Amino acid sequence: MRTVDVIIKKRDGLELTTEEIQFFVRGFTDGSVTDYQASAWAMAVLLNGMSDRETTDLTLAMANSGDVLDLSGVVDIALDKHSTGGVGDKTTLVVEPVVSACGLRVGKMSGRGLGFSGGTLDKMESIPGFRTDLTQKEFLSQLKKLGLVLTGQTGDLAPADGKMYALRDVTGTVDSLSLIASSIMSKKIAGGAQRMVLDVKVGVGAFMKTLPQAKDLARIMVSIGRLAKRKVVCLLSDMNQPLGHAVGNALEVKEAIETLRGGGPKDFREHCLQVASHLIVLGEGANSLAAARKLAEASLQDGTALARFRELVAAQGGDVSYVDDPNKLPKAPFVETVKAPKSGYLKWIDAKIVGETSVEMGAGRAKKGDSIDPAVGIVVLHKVGDRVAKGDALFELHANSKKSLEAARARVLSAHQWSAKKVKPLPHSYGVVK
Amino acid sequence: MRTVDVIIKKRDGLELTTEEIQFFVRGFTDGSVTDYQASAWAMAVLLNGMSDRETTDLTLAMANSGDVLDLSGVVDIALDKHSTGGVGDKTTLVVEPVVSACGLRVGKMSGRGLGFSGGTLDKMESIPGFRTDLTQKEFLSQLKKLGLVLTGQTGDLAPADGKMYALRDVTGTVDSLSLIASSIMSKKIAGGAQRMVLDVKVGVGAFMKTLPQAKDLARIMVSIGRLAKRKVVCLLSDMNQPLGHAVGNALEVKEAIETLRGGGPKDFREHCLQVASHLIVLGEGANSLAAARKLAEASLQDGTALARFRELVAAQGGDVSYVDDPNKLPKAPFVETVKAPKSGYLKWIDAKIVGETSVEMGAGRAKKGDSIDPAVGIVVLHKVGDRVAKGDALFELHANSKKSLEAARARVLSAHQWSAKKVKPLPHSYGVVK
Repeated sequence: MRTVDVIIKKRDGLELTTEEIQFFVRGFTDGSVTDYQASAWAMAVLLNGMSDRETTDLTLAMANSGDVLDLSGVVDIALDKHSTGGVGDKTTLVVEPVVSACGLRVGKMSGRGLGFSGGTLDKMESIPGFRTDLTQKEFLSQLKKLGLVLTGQTGDLAPADGKMYALRDVTGTVDSLSLIASSIMSKKIAGGAQRMVLDVKVGVGAFMKTLPQAKDLARIMVSIGRLAKRKVVCLLSDMNQPLGHAVGNALEVKEAIETLRGGGPKDFREHCLQVASHLIVLGEGANSLAAARKLAEASLQDGTALARFRELVAAQGGDVSYVDDPNKLPKAPFVETVKAPKSGYLKWIDAKIVGETSVEMGAGRAKKGDSIDPAVGIVVLHKVGDRVAKGDALFELHANSKKSLEAARARVLSAHQWSAKKVKPLPHSYGVVK
Repeated sequence: MRTVDVIIKKRDGLELTTEEIQFFVRGFTDGSVTDYQASAWAMAVLLNGMSDRETTDLTLAMANSGDVLDLSGVVDIALDKHSTGGVGDKTTLVVEPVVSACGLRVGKMSGRGLGFSGGTLDKMESIPGFRTDLTQKEFLSQLKKLGLVLTGQTGDLAPADGKMYALRDVTGTVDSLSLIASSIMSKKIAGGAQRMVLDVKVGVGAFMKTLPQAKDLARIMVSIGRLAKRKVVCLLSDMNQPLGHAVGNALEVKEAIETLRGGGPKDFREHCLQVASHLIVLGEGANSLAAARKLAEASLQDGTALARFRELVAAQGGDVSYVDDPNKLPKAPFVETVKAPKSGYLKWIDAKIVGETSVEMGAGRAKKGDSIDPAVGIVVLHKVGDRVAKGDALFELHANSKKSLEAARARVLSAHQWSAKKVKPLPHSYGVVK
């Protein structure tokens, strides 16, 4: 088999065989397929598409390109969740403890933030001492003993995917639904997941800008799951406005803890309950979504979810006094509550602008390896549809310099659009694909 | 400007600006645009196409990526010819001396053979001593003094094209008409050509398999010429069966010398007269094609074209006794005349099979850098449409081993297809685009 012939076949719009895809991924992993061949192939895939069968083969080939975790000795059903990323998306911090409080074991490997979407590891590291670099042995041991883990990737999972993603990023080949789906799914499968909830964000603050795109991606991932004998449930959820109120690492941890205490923003709480309910059903902790939701709500009400979160922090070396008193979390030196410049209904709070502003303030990374400031960020106090009177508190800024504060104020104000007439709230969810 | 944005723009089917194309080619030449970015871009170009304006900008950017020859002090009109390559295509060996005998200066830089299509330099090197590695200074000096040069590329002409071609070859991005056209034209323009005849071969033994493809390529190259202020005439000529009879280096030189002596195969002589006539008109050596053709025919008849060829060989260090007595040219140890296995009309003589067989016998290169044997090859004695009786000589094999001879016999026989009914000859030409 020659690499160039595999490229030409895809260039000509033909379906690649399982063997051709395995050959290509194996070669890309060991270097016999060069970067310039892989990027030409990726462009052909982007422009000509792949069938679900090809996409599944690609997913499995990438999953098998490195270590593959076997969780069968540790958990009955290996559950996982994944979000395609958004602004203010601290869902994992609440969902994991909730699901765990409902009696299911759940170990999750998360990532760091890049661009305007934040990363779970960065958020958790706002808690002093919290380790996100568990070894594979520690991961398995904690999953077995505590039933709850939240760390970075352990071992060499799906190295072909990592290599391919870096290449796609600089060759204009990111926006292929097949490549996106196989990238997400290959990491999950290499991490040992058998059943998973994938939270596909839709809107200006998400990777998928439109609902049809998001539905396509969800459909492909569910199909990969079916063909690869994994159960996949995809939620389509809004990312036009930030999720919850807080955007920024320590600010989001604080909001997650409020939610674990039974409070928190209504939209965020609702989102967490939906994700958790699906996970609980997948993990066979309940027979129906309604039953699962009752369990999840109870865990927020009775403090068991919060207790689980506290145990998680303790197990990974974090200082639990920060959980008990979130006011201890890192604080920015310049804090300002910005007031509404006029009265009216909010018709738009642009998640992308809010996300980008938080990156500029230091809460995220413009490029890989940039350092972040855990204290800074934005707290958007309202939601689309809210009636706000002139002079009401509109948002809070937490900045590490006066200059940053000034710049952020103008940008976040520009993210808010007003209407004199009543505006319908944005939906939380656009449905489920499974 | 970011490289990835230029790739994305082409990926999305948009037209690149002149500046974007110049940025990309400049970056590719100096290494700031990586191979993996260039190959992804090339795939996007192949699948989404480029406008004639973009293709012209690409051509000029590649032409300007290295040395650009200025022939204005040496010739009045810088003429050139180029063939897209075929089997038995020794046209340059006859056309250059003819055009020169008609009073025009013509210096040509040729290439080596690769795959089933031969290269002019390899052919000329059958003549002992003939140098194909003239320096730029030697090229210019000989063009001025003798008015006739035939050598390999001098100087660093269109390095971006060389680099891009090597990359396209292994990334499935060869078959883009825009990339093919700009590759051909960039080298010609860098070589200083102002007016040129491009011989676009069509058929199984050519790069362009079908007439519509070949016409498209011709149209693009004529358009580049117009936009880049060069005069371009494209001939569309048959390459389903070999051109002339001889395929193989010394064998083709012998056939070219026969033609320069006023003999030679009818189809080959006709093709040379057509190419030469267009060049003579472009070079303003005649007012019409008919007048140019008369001059060209006369030069073959009166020996002036042969005399020019002899002077060319002498000027570049070749042993002219080989021109005077072509039987001195390298001879293969195993020569066989294969007889027709049956009677009938020849309906097909597959140029690709004949070309590939000659490569297997050692006349060409399967890959760059392979050595070649000047003596070996095939002489196809008939043309499609000929009536051949069983036992008539069908073709000659010139091989360097018994084994090679046996293998070639079967393959070349298989290249001949027969019909009991009369068959129309194949046309030499499918027209002219200008």
